[in-house]
Amino acid sequence: MNSSRLETDDDFMRLALGLAERGRGSVEPNPMVGCVIVRDNQVIGEGYHQRFGGPHAEVHALRDAGDARGATAYVTLEPCCHHGKTPPCSDALIAAGISRVVVAMADPFEKVDGGGVAQLQRAGIETRVGVLEQESRELNAPYLKRLQTGRPYTIAKWAMTVDGRIATSTGQSQWISNEVSRADVHVLRGRVDAIAVGMGTVIADDPMLTARPAGVRTATRVVFCANRLPTPQSRLIQSANEVPVLLIVSPLIAAADVAELEQLGASVYRCTSSSLVEMINQGLDFLGGQGMTNVMIEGGGKLMASFLTADAIDQYEVYVGAKVFGGHCALGPVAGDGFASVAEAAALRLESLQRLGDNDVKLVYRRLPRD
Amino acid sequence: MNSSRLETDDDFMRLALGLAERGRGSVEPNPMVGCVIVRDNQVIGEGYHQRFGGPHAEVHALRDAGDARGATAYVTLEPCCHHGKTPPCSDALIAAGISRVVVAMADPFEKVDGGGVAQLQRAGIETRVGVLEQESRELNAPYLKRLQTGRPYTIAKWAMTVDGRIATSTGQSQWISNEVSRADVHVLRGRVDAIAVGMGTVIADDPMLTARPAGVRTATRVVFCANRLPTPQSRLIQSANEVPVLLIVSPLIAAADVAELEQLGASVYRCTSSSLVEMINQGLDFLGGQGMTNVMIEGGGKLMASFLTADAIDQYEVYVGAKVFGGHCALGPVAGDGFASVAEAAALRLESLQRLGDNDVKLVYRRLPRD
Repeated sequence: MNSSRLETDDDFMRLALGLAERGRGSVEPNPMVGCVIVRDNQVIGEGYHQRFGGPHAEVHALRDAGDARGATAYVTLEPCCHHGKTPPCSDALIAAGISRVVVAMADPFEKVDGGGVAQLQRAGIETRVGVLEQESRELNAPYLKRLQTGRPYTIAKWAMTVDGRIATSTGQSQWISNEVSRADVHVLRGRVDAIAVGMGTVIADDPMLTARPAGVRTATRVVFCANRLPTPQSRLIQSANEVPVLLIVSPLIAAADVAELEQLGASVYRCTSSSLVEMINQGLDFLGGQGMTNVMIEGGGKLMASFLTADAIDQYEVYVGAKVFGGHCALGPVAGDGFASVAEAAALRLESLQRLGDNDVKLVYRRLPRD
Repeated sequence: MNSSRLETDDDFMRLALGLAERGRGSVEPNPMVGCVIVRDNQVIGEGYHQRFGGPHAEVHALRDAGDARGATAYVTLEPCCHHGKTPPCSDALIAAGISRVVVAMADPFEKVDGGGVAQLQRAGIETRVGVLEQESRELNAPYLKRLQTGRPYTIAKWAMTVDGRIATSTGQSQWISNEVSRADVHVLRGRVDAIAVGMGTVIADDPMLTARPAGVRTATRVVFCANRLPTPQSRLIQSANEVPVLLIVSPLIAAADVAELEQLGASVYRCTSSSLVEMINQGLDFLGGQGMTNVMIEGGGKLMASFLTADAIDQYEVYVGAKVFGGHCALGPVAGDGFASVAEAAALRLESLQRLGDNDVKLVYRRLPRD
């Protein structure tokens, strides 16, 4: 994109969406928001919401512009009109003498919900809402999901071979993907609120589930414990006082065993059901209530299958390593009973495909809504 | 690429490689060859080997150029110097008054093997060999493999879900990939010499294995029969008089049963071993001896695994449909015992990745040589 050729509302909004994206991982549970200030088709100010609790995108952009009188502001989400951690952005835009505000989408947050645009209109500012709305909705799908359902957005992640295996027939899995892919996973880990695994993965891999190097936020390591608990000696429990561990526990598990792990630093959420699918539903409600916006699911196959049965996977990040393992007993990424028919199977939308390093491929999908 | 800016040997050779590619499927068992004639950095002639038995690339390009005196010829493979189905191209280049010939790679074919370049040099023509040689080798990997090993180049093809399944847990597989992907498979079928399957696939799918619509060549449908034969009622046998069927048969199978299928139009090659891996080795020798350059392997998982064990897969064309099936019993593309360790596993080189239609992905890999 040649910035000297920007001229339409779409062009400037696309620029604002790109700025918004820079806040990913730092702003949640707030939405990512970007803003550009334009006068005579020239960008005179840029800004984005950089971190939770800090100034909003509009404030950064107005500061960047200096004198913004008579200019147009492009904002990827309706400006707020309430006093939260910062003063209302609608006030700031009015005070700066902005004459036109273009908004990608209204903010469904109950304290805004059209109020920001209404206030601008009352101040005599021309407004346009709905420019690149779909792109804005996709950017903030996690924010919108939590607002609408109370649950975090879920990202299933796995690395598999070209023939769809996550381990050899003897269980080896290091490494399927290359160093570039593995670094990419650590970046993802460093911007989500939680990383969820099942007990099979804890037993097989004794994983740390930390981002290395550390990212902008530290994910809570969540273990779904339907029948068993991690041992006190597991690396997760051993490090529970440094990096949070949350055990989502079925009623089948003895209270004394749970208490032992709590004493070692683990947090516990007790489900009322021992069905893994129901535990997932209860667990996601709990995580959403804790203010979590993004949860990554790292496996194994049984947990992944239960998330799928619960229709609770919003996004897939699949790394395909350039190897073939073969083996009818080698594990695939999603186990369980599976869908019996093609018609029932989960249908996805391909969001992106990307080569990572020489030979790896990263595929990103989002769920298609069920009919 | 802006053709007005071509100026280096690489630039013109890349153009010639693009022309060569147009002969794919029509020229085999000959190599694909392209040629451009250039004078003063202007392309004055283009040509490629269009079909087996027809004029070579150089002849087409010289005809296109008209007067080629003093020009440079770029050829993707060393010009031939022998009388085959057509007169030697080296003679044609000399007679046309070409002053310089740039060649991507020498032709290892025993009747050429440096002789073409030597003849040009004897005629006082300046020659350069080895421009984009790697690209030329990859383009003609099937031709080179057959020349060097006597065996055809093999292309494993499968369609799988995002979670690496080729069928649901109940065996459903229609459809994993979208219409664009399926059309792409039919194009591939229409340019190879043979399409190989195992008996599991014949029993499960009763497939036709024809290209629809028909392609530039009609592939022989090859069935590896280790323990069983197709029934006389199968669609393959029923259509054997219209489209060739070749049964590669183990010594375990009764001669009378084989004879019955021969009477219905099937051809038969009898192996001396009942090991599927050994049958593949013998079968590939036989297919190469029949003049076949490209064989596509369409499954199922057991045959694919045996080809892998035989280290006999040169290329992979993998279609990933935007679905998730799940199911620990759902079939993957490569069955068998599989490799026990990651170190033993087949390592591949990613050649291309491509979105097909809205949501499908096509991944193409080539084998990396074993250490």
